[in-house]
Amino acid sequence: MHDDRTGQIAVIFLSHRTDADDAGYGEAAEAMGKLASRQPGYRGIDSTRGPDGLGITISYWMDEESALAWRANPEHSAIRNTGREIWYENYEVIVARIARNYAWARS
Amino acid sequence: MHDDRTGQIAVIFLSHRTDADDAGYGEAAEAMGKLASRQPGYRGIDSTRGPDGLGITISYWMDEESALAWRANPEHSAIRNTGREIWYENYEVIVARIARNYAWARS
Repeated sequence: MHDDRTGQIAVIFLSHRTDADDAGYGEAAEAMGKLASRQPGYRGIDSTRGPDGLGITISYWMDEESALAWRANPEHSAIRNTGREIWYENYEVIVARIARNYAWARS
Repeated sequence: MHDDRTGQIAVIFLSHRTDADDAGYGEAAEAMGKLASRQPGYRGIDSTRGPDGLGITISYWMDEESALAWRANPEHSAIRNTGREIWYENYEVIVARIARNYAWARS
């Protein structure tokens, strides 16, 4: 969690799942993570989902161009349709440019 | 989750907790949430922590000035010290300016 991310694009994905098709969702999430990591400009991902059902996934991109290219990836587009049909109750996407970041760890 | 957040500042807080003092942490988290919501320029918060221990909290601010004022709030500063002493194994703070956002909900 300690790279300098200044100037990177953070794509924040907030979601609530339906109760449907946990197995298919899990497989797709894993496949999309791998696919994203092979996109040009990929700079990492942080993802978690809490017991109240809110999931937050943040993917990091070198620049706007690489973030938009990931959005346009055909496999990613297709899986988003499945997400709206089956897996998600609602979601929000927030695209932001990182101004600064810093980290702390117990020594 | 559906406000237009263009131009807002997102302060992303990624953390892993220690095993220590769950009760004190829970109380402080709730108190900080309330305190933040009374700060000028506050525009909301999304927060979750998954079973693997990664917590992601995103607070939204009208502008850089209000985000910095929250950082400088004396009660918030004091509780951050306690966080480093007791509650956190590690954390990262990422400050980003929101370029655009959109939402979808099952109808």
